[in-house]
Amino acid sequence: MPVIRVEMFKGRTVDQKRQLVKELTDAFIRTCGGTPESVQIVITDVAKEDWGGAGILMSDKYPDKK
Amino acid sequence: MPVIRVEMFKGRTVDQKRQLVKELTDAFIRTCGGTPESVQIVITDVAKEDWGGAGILMSDKYPDKK
Amino acid sequence: MPVIRVEMFKGRTVDQKRQLVKELTDAFIRTCGGTPESVQIVITDVAKEDWGGAGILMSDKYPDKK
Amino acid sequence: MPVIRVEMFKGRTVDQKRQLVKELTDAFIRTCGGTPESVQIVITDVAKEDWGGAGILMSDKYPDKK
Amino acid sequence: MPVIRVEMFKGRTVDQKRQLVKELTDAFIRTCGGTPESVQIVITDVAKEDWGGAGILMSDKYPDKK
Amino acid sequence: MPVIRVEMFKGRTVDQKRQLVKELTDAFIRTCGGTPESVQIVITDVAKEDWGGAGILMSDKYPDKK
Repeated sequence: MPVIRVEMFKGRTVDQKRQLVKELTDAFIRTCGGTPESVQIVITDVAKEDWGGAGILMSDKYPDKK
Repeated sequence: MPVIRVEMFKGRTVDQKRQLVKELTDAFIRTCGGTPESVQIVITDVAKEDWGGAGILMSDKYPDKK
Repeated sequence: MPVIRVEMFKGRTVDQKRQLVKELTDAFIRTCGGTPESVQIVITDVAKEDWGGAGILMSDKYPDKK
Repeated sequence: MPVIRVEMFKGRTVDQKRQLVKELTDAFIRTCGGTPESVQIVITDVAKEDWGGAGILMSDKYPDKK
Repeated sequence: MPVIRVEMFKGRTVDQKRQLVKELTDAFIRTCGGTPESVQIVITDVAKEDWGGAGILMSDKYPDKK
Repeated sequence: MPVIRVEMFKGRTVDQKRQLVKELTDAFIRTCGGTPESVQIVITDVAKEDWGGAGILMSDKYPDKK
């Protein structure tokens, strides 16, 4: 009761998500108060071909190395 | 016009989604008016490793049984 | 844990929102299981001038009566 | 800074997304100003079984042809 | 069916929103097909004090002129 | 390029939002990498009468003191 949503590039490990959820929750409590139990976080992995910046797909700007 | 979004744990069947969409639409019309045709519903299945509560990933709190 | 979001035209009363929150929660539990305590609902009132359909602002399509 | 989100039926090609991102960015700049670099676009593909309209799942209304 | 969401800085006029809704709808149809009637657009005006980039509130980075 | 969204109860000060934006950005970089410049954060203040939990409006559960 806050809800925090993170949209980021696909590819982070479960361990990175584990740390992210912990640190975002702590950051919220430190700055805005409340209890950790109230903080919900939803992560969305976004593929490069579903993200555009400056009118260009990120899969075109940053193609996967071969 | 309304748009209703549901983020929930992955794992519900198509039949549960079918009932959910029907009942949420009915609930909206009963309480707020309008026509069923105007109600759009988008469901997002969220994996446990993409949901955090109290600073903990749900995949750690509720690991899949083996 | 689910989170339900409702975007709808501005103008519903607090009592309509009260009923909406109750009925959407019940509808979710009936069809998808879980406990009422786990259901979070966030309502967003949208002005007609911030909603477009068929390329037209709703404030142009449905102007307020005078 | 703007962020534009598009939720649409699954099935568009990468080339359609490439054009979409380009044209949405141009449309924003033409009408609201700013620079292309500032425009972020996130696309979400939604399966028909996750989209409801008029209380009916789109996978029931528009079943895949066999 | 698609739903397009735009989050942008507060301050655009109704006429800019009118043009934006028209042009985004056209851009979607041209690139992804479908009918204008199916395109829903929701605009959210965001205050500078509710938008952060590079860890800084936009109201600090771009203070209103006096 | 991540985008982080925070929905929270209305009432935090600009200074709390300033700290929140800084700390969430730092938390993201520490755990998931990237540069501060790439992190966009959008805050949404939600009124108690627009938030429901356990089927009850927060404005009923936590009425303002008089």
